[in-house]
Amino acid sequence: MRAVILAAGQGYRIRLLSKGKPKCLIRLLGLTILERILYACRGAGVREFLIILGFEGERIRRFLGDGSRLGVKIFYIPCPDWEKGNGVSLHAAKRYIRRGEKFLVLMSDHLIQPELLQRFVEEAAACPRSLMSYDEKLGELPNMKEATKVRIGSRGDILGVGKGLRRYGGVDCGVFAFTPLIFKCLEEAFAINRFTLSDGLNFLIRRRAIRGFHIGNFYWQDIDSRLDLSIARYKILSRLNTGKEGWVSRVINRRFSNQITRRLINYNITPNMVSISSFLVAIVSAILFILKMPFYAGLIAQFSSILDGVDGELARAKFLVSPFGGYMDSILDRYADLFLIFGMSSYVYSRQPTGTVLLISFLALMGAPMSMLCKERFYSAFGLPFIPDQMDGWTRHLPANRDGRLFIIMVSGILNQVLYGLLALGIITNFQTLYRLFSVKRMKLKTTD
Amino acid sequence: MRAVILAAGQGYRIRLLSKGKPKCLIRLLGLTILERILYACRGAGVREFLIILGFEGERIRRFLGDGSRLGVKIFYIPCPDWEKGNGVSLHAAKRYIRRGEKFLVLMSDHLIQPELLQRFVEEAAACPRSLMSYDEKLGELPNMKEATKVRIGSRGDILGVGKGLRRYGGVDCGVFAFTPLIFKCLEEAFAINRFTLSDGLNFLIRRRAIRGFHIGNFYWQDIDSRLDLSIARYKILSRLNTGKEGWVSRVINRRFSNQITRRLINYNITPNMVSISSFLVAIVSAILFILKMPFYAGLIAQFSSILDGVDGELARAKFLVSPFGGYMDSILDRYADLFLIFGMSSYVYSRQPTGTVLLISFLALMGAPMSMLCKERFYSAFGLPFIPDQMDGWTRHLPANRDGRLFIIMVSGILNQVLYGLLALGIITNFQTLYRLFSVKRMKLKTTD
Repeated sequence: MRAVILAAGQGYRIRLLSKGKPKCLIRLLGLTILERILYACRGAGVREFLIILGFEGERIRRFLGDGSRLGVKIFYIPCPDWEKGNGVSLHAAKRYIRRGEKFLVLMSDHLIQPELLQRFVEEAAACPRSLMSYDEKLGELPNMKEATKVRIGSRGDILGVGKGLRRYGGVDCGVFAFTPLIFKCLEEAFAINRFTLSDGLNFLIRRRAIRGFHIGNFYWQDIDSRLDLSIARYKILSRLNTGKEGWVSRVINRRFSNQITRRLINYNITPNMVSISSFLVAIVSAILFILKMPFYAGLIAQFSSILDGVDGELARAKFLVSPFGGYMDSILDRYADLFLIFGMSSYVYSRQPTGTVLLISFLALMGAPMSMLCKERFYSAFGLPFIPDQMDGWTRHLPANRDGRLFIIMVSGILNQVLYGLLALGIITNFQTLYRLFSVKRMKLKTTD
Repeated sequence: MRAVILAAGQGYRIRLLSKGKPKCLIRLLGLTILERILYACRGAGVREFLIILGFEGERIRRFLGDGSRLGVKIFYIPCPDWEKGNGVSLHAAKRYIRRGEKFLVLMSDHLIQPELLQRFVEEAAACPRSLMSYDEKLGELPNMKEATKVRIGSRGDILGVGKGLRRYGGVDCGVFAFTPLIFKCLEEAFAINRFTLSDGLNFLIRRRAIRGFHIGNFYWQDIDSRLDLSIARYKILSRLNTGKEGWVSRVINRRFSNQITRRLINYNITPNMVSISSFLVAIVSAILFILKMPFYAGLIAQFSSILDGVDGELARAKFLVSPFGGYMDSILDRYADLFLIFGMSSYVYSRQPTGTVLLISFLALMGAPMSMLCKERFYSAFGLPFIPDQMDGWTRHLPANRDGRLFIIMVSGILNQVLYGLLALGIITNFQTLYRLFSVKRMKLKTTD
């Protein structure tokens, strides 16, 4: 599917903020709004774009070029009459759309959650009619007066669109999928001197040719003011975590990692650099253990754990998620774990050189890679991702994931009870592996029944 | 796709061997030939069977029941006239085949390589005409006189079928996919008093309604004599290895593991029992190291390595491959490795209690799970299996896979150079992990270019 992006409007109210450039070129957490839209589309499988230019269009063209920098193809369509209304802007795309082609239409100043776009594109591809997104979370909208309201029928049909609508169930989020019929509808609106997209939509509605797409809990944000920008920033940052983290990550690390991500995001720092830094910080912690400074070693280990969350957040925030990044991060994490346990063992053994200490160290070393190993092997054996929260029974509360393990290391370092830390690690990790072996066996029986 | 299995014939020549029971019930490496055919079909996605019964049909019905024991559905069709010819047997299925249904036809006394059936079913599903398999490896056939010859046209069409054919390029392997047109062709043959399947085939050929499927290097075996049984046994055993093993496995272990598999196969021993035994044997080896008996420990470690090949062979030979089996085997192998290295370290440290020994032990422990970890994580990151032979460059010759590592352990134990064994393990495994990190990075660049 191709996408048409309406980037002709001026954005009066935000003009001071944007210093005379089109508002879609305002930076938001290291990327312009328009780049965020293009990347989100790319993630949904959209690779070709028609961008409608009006106000300061040359700046947009100069900034994005042919799109190869972003891994997409961009074609620009100037629209001299853009000031008449955004319906006129969209109509400028008419002669570039193929017969019967279903295409996306997005606003260049609407931030859209990437996952929302993905679902929307899937649904649009399956739906023969046009599709428009709407948001029912009306309580969260700061400026209802300016919003384009939408009335939705009981079967998901759109019954009316407009700013002045008095009965409505949702608000237009500016994400559409159209068939070329929209151009005919726009022309009908032009004929009665109405030039906005909403006017065209109402002719489409009269034909019963458009259905609604309820966005549920996904976020979007029309950016019209400084306040909108702050809200957008908050929305992006608060959805950077995958939800698959352990509880230490959720309760403690995330507060810090979000702050760090927010600060790093404006610099030219890649997620892979952060992964390597997290690894090096863990090595420093291991060395501090060896140098008999468990207190600082523990703190530094926890810092490494926090940084281990930053790489993923940064990658998602800047659309830099890559298979290699995840791969390298996993391998480095395993080495970091093992070096940390080695450091702890050296520390304890230097004060207490007994066989018991060596045995406990061995147990901890043995268990360290097992959590990941079980999960990965489960995926390759059964073709399903291993989801600890669903599959680990009551053991999901054990701090056996990486965030939990590093937390144990921190606590044992700070309290100078490193041997007990090793013991806890050894017991928890190996016990969970054993538990998983049996629980997977049971799961398998359930499947074949 | 459903399958019709012709199990009505008597098998004169083999009668002594089969003691009066139908020859498809002769045991071959722990399973009857008919069970092997059903399992192979199940592996190719075929779950419903129509079995044509004639000679001693009740014994077959009693043995297989409704098929639920094998995870399939079986429907039996008695054919009183089976002695006329196998065309009559097949014709008995006519009223159970739906209009336009494409169905498989197999001989109950032809052993077929499971992978052959898989490919054949895929091809048959894609081909609108009937399909029959043929084998061009004529040099390997012991009894050309009895074989049904096939003449193949330049475009893969079948031009003629028969025992007496003088010009031919291949031999019929007894694997067919038919449309219901075959019944009409059989009736045309019956009308001129010809009752074999070959006669029906020739009417199908006259309509240009059948194409050939070249089986390439896959094996099959018509079982007619004691010699055929031995050949079949050899063919099964020689294809039990996946080809993904390391060179120690290929050159050394396989000779022993094949022999063990061959002996275990007639007992009620599951692959999972063998996996657990292999694990326990490794633990014994670790204990022998701790008890300062490196020579025996080394030998026992190698025995564990051999057993580690038996579970997979046994699973494939008895159609018992299961995701859980592979999962458990992987986890147990990792623990076995770590215990072995722990045993070796204890042995060395008891004679040489230095920090260097501990450091080397740590390196070896650290590297032990990394080989598998890299491969599994690669699969989940890139969606492709990691193939060491293609992706490890020159390091594929290093003994870094499990068979190689256990071989190092054996040699170092036998020569009583356990410290060097640990050192070699530590260097090789960690070096290969590092190498993989960089080579995967390069691979990724190639993909995005």
